[in-house]
Amino acid sequence: MGTLAIRGGRVLTPAMEVHEADVLIDQEAGSILAVGTDVGTGDETIDATEQLIVPGLVNAHCHVAMTLFRGIADDKQLDRWLSEDIWPLEAELRPADVFAGARLGLLEMIKSGTTAFADMYFHVPQIARAVEEAGIRGVIGHTAITVGKDEAAALADLEESLAVALEYEDAADGRIRTSFQPHALTTVGTEYLDRYVPRAHQAGLPIHFHANETRDEVDPIVEEHGRRPLVYADERGLLTDTSWIAHGVHVDNEEIDLLADRGTGVAHCPASNMKLASGMAPVQQLLDAGVGVGIGTDGAASNNDLDMFDELRDAAMLGKLAADDAAAMDAATTFTAATAGGADLLGLATGRIEPGAPADLAVLALDRPHLTPAHDLLSHLVYAARGADVRHTICAGRVLMRDRTVLSLDERATIRAARRRAETLLARANGSV
Amino acid sequence: MGTLAIRGGRVLTPAMEVHEADVLIDQEAGSILAVGTDVGTGDETIDATEQLIVPGLVNAHCHVAMTLFRGIADDKQLDRWLSEDIWPLEAELRPADVFAGARLGLLEMIKSGTTAFADMYFHVPQIARAVEEAGIRGVIGHTAITVGKDEAAALADLEESLAVALEYEDAADGRIRTSFQPHALTTVGTEYLDRYVPRAHQAGLPIHFHANETRDEVDPIVEEHGRRPLVYADERGLLTDTSWIAHGVHVDNEEIDLLADRGTGVAHCPASNMKLASGMAPVQQLLDAGVGVGIGTDGAASNNDLDMFDELRDAAMLGKLAADDAAAMDAATTFTAATAGGADLLGLATGRIEPGAPADLAVLALDRPHLTPAHDLLSHLVYAARGADVRHTICAGRVLMRDRTVLSLDERATIRAARRRAETLLARANGSV
Repeated sequence: MGTLAIRGGRVLTPAMEVHEADVLIDQEAGSILAVGTDVGTGDETIDATEQLIVPGLVNAHCHVAMTLFRGIADDKQLDRWLSEDIWPLEAELRPADVFAGARLGLLEMIKSGTTAFADMYFHVPQIARAVEEAGIRGVIGHTAITVGKDEAAALADLEESLAVALEYEDAADGRIRTSFQPHALTTVGTEYLDRYVPRAHQAGLPIHFHANETRDEVDPIVEEHGRRPLVYADERGLLTDTSWIAHGVHVDNEEIDLLADRGTGVAHCPASNMKLASGMAPVQQLLDAGVGVGIGTDGAASNNDLDMFDELRDAAMLGKLAADDAAAMDAATTFTAATAGGADLLGLATGRIEPGAPADLAVLALDRPHLTPAHDLLSHLVYAARGADVRHTICAGRVLMRDRTVLSLDERATIRAARRRAETLLARANGSV
Repeated sequence: MGTLAIRGGRVLTPAMEVHEADVLIDQEAGSILAVGTDVGTGDETIDATEQLIVPGLVNAHCHVAMTLFRGIADDKQLDRWLSEDIWPLEAELRPADVFAGARLGLLEMIKSGTTAFADMYFHVPQIARAVEEAGIRGVIGHTAITVGKDEAAALADLEESLAVALEYEDAADGRIRTSFQPHALTTVGTEYLDRYVPRAHQAGLPIHFHANETRDEVDPIVEEHGRRPLVYADERGLLTDTSWIAHGVHVDNEEIDLLADRGTGVAHCPASNMKLASGMAPVQQLLDAGVGVGIGTDGAASNNDLDMFDELRDAAMLGKLAADDAAAMDAATTFTAATAGGADLLGLATGRIEPGAPADLAVLALDRPHLTPAHDLLSHLVYAARGADVRHTICAGRVLMRDRTVLSLDERATIRAARRRAETLLARANGSV
């Protein structure tokens, strides 16, 4: 592996400006060598004429293997959806199911220009294996729940979350990073948080957990502990400058200030929040207060896809509605959140195109009716482009998709395997196998 | 032209069920001859293996030529966006600009499976010409505004709206239908409505107008006339069972009952309503009250695309949020609104796949990562599919797109022409030409 030049196109800079420029990549180091009009041809060349080179998108909150449940139970409230549909199916999941679902999700991400994601799930070795093969970056981990479990099972779950995070940190040539993952403030008991959060800190692990997604995640904490969930979380040591919460829909001003003060970020999941009628996160208000914001798809079962271009559009549009202000969540703010913003949450250096940065890129076709005329390409990225416009996806200098052909995974085989695993999983869950 | 058989795929029925079936089309008559497992090969065949045949989507509210303004001024409130950006540009529009913009929009619609649309604009002969060439159905018309005009100009605008509707009704072998179009209740004076609405009724024309889109379209009417806008509209004779309003975001219970009672439909435009922070239309409540609901993209400048699959997803998701109920606007309800529901609003027989119905179809690929696994294809249509999944588009029996190649319009030439017209339009508006 030598150098790869992407030539003849336009580049979105970290200042969210579009310039005609080429990008030269050191494939061995996996990083960007140069951005400009005179970078040379490289050992290999990708022609980007009529194309736009942008940072690979960062999906700041996902459950990638849940692609297997796509479309299985829509149009339900979160609590019923979890208890009646998702949890019974998850109880039947075997390691091979999680592997097949993760590969399917990663295939979808590569096809829509995502090069890094944060994941919360279980059977994590399977997810690590899929990430290793797919070639993108994953901040993965085992999600621990203690409610409804006896003490031994609860402790085992938390121990697994710690152990998995330590085992996989820096795997796959550094593409895999990890976090300690108490599921949510309502699903992990106080005594367990008080015991394990300090251990996660001692181990130097970031912490990622669900918080304030629905009113049902707020009210029980207020009732039991007499304080807002994020105040309660802060008292447990959960809010640090390496931790980030998922959702943050129902947060009050005190909680927003607390997040800003502690440096704790929010993975905003607009599609999931709409689909489950969870509410509208005050995402512009969070940003104005200085809170780091990334954008996540959540799992495919509540979205129902992993296309970050859908999520960009949703984040900008729902952000305006939440702020009652059409100027809120403008295109530059939204695209930054979905790239550098998410990367900052996850502790990754990716999300910007500049010399020295990781060579994580998505290259989009511009000669499309829905991207015509070209008054403002940044606007097109947020409001009009979709994953299918991505022609090439590059992560850590490696071309994962070229001209819409995925090179790291066999697309047909991945789809077939996922279909087969989903069918037998449903048969098992229905008791017919 | 003889018969066309679409074979080997699955069909979405009017009951929103998916069955393995073929569709046989009479291309001369432009209608569906048979749906079933034994329809024969036809004179010509399209192989729909691993594909899903659905009714062509009906875009119930659009300004198709506004594709020229895509991305030109985002992130602004409706009133400033109109007065500072859109109206000054529209003042510069020449007939050839409207033709180029309309062709671009129709190209985009064909590529995303839309086969019928309702349009409000001006330079209508150009739009009719583009519709004739593109091959889809359009319910078009000239939109009249009287505020800010002297009486002669106001009357001329209204006369043109009547004359254009009468001239183009049933053009293009019946694919073109028309409506009389007072722009909005706040932009056409009471005395003009009282003079022209009866004339539109006498001429047998449907009426399409903007209503209750933002609070700024409600408050002035309440202040001036002491009643809600739709009560005021009803007193002017605007609410009939052939008329439909665009938006209907800020409607109260009395207005909802009035719409239901009069048989007046609502073209719901969720993306535009989010992007301009206009609000959330109570779309499930409208349906529950018996109001006919279609789904529209609005113009590309406030969306920013004309892909009805984006709009399906937005309508379902925003509908849940508006109702505070994840069960609201379920997949079947939403897809019906975007097909038969919209067709009913527009007075068209399309939007359902059954013998005798117009042969207006979209055929989608199913072998895609984001449409895997296949637990529920109706769910995929609403929550996961996008325009780029459409392989073939058929309208009135004619194949407009086959294997993603548009046959009725030259894609490259249409894009080039739109770019050129947009550039010179901007140069004129900036005074540099």
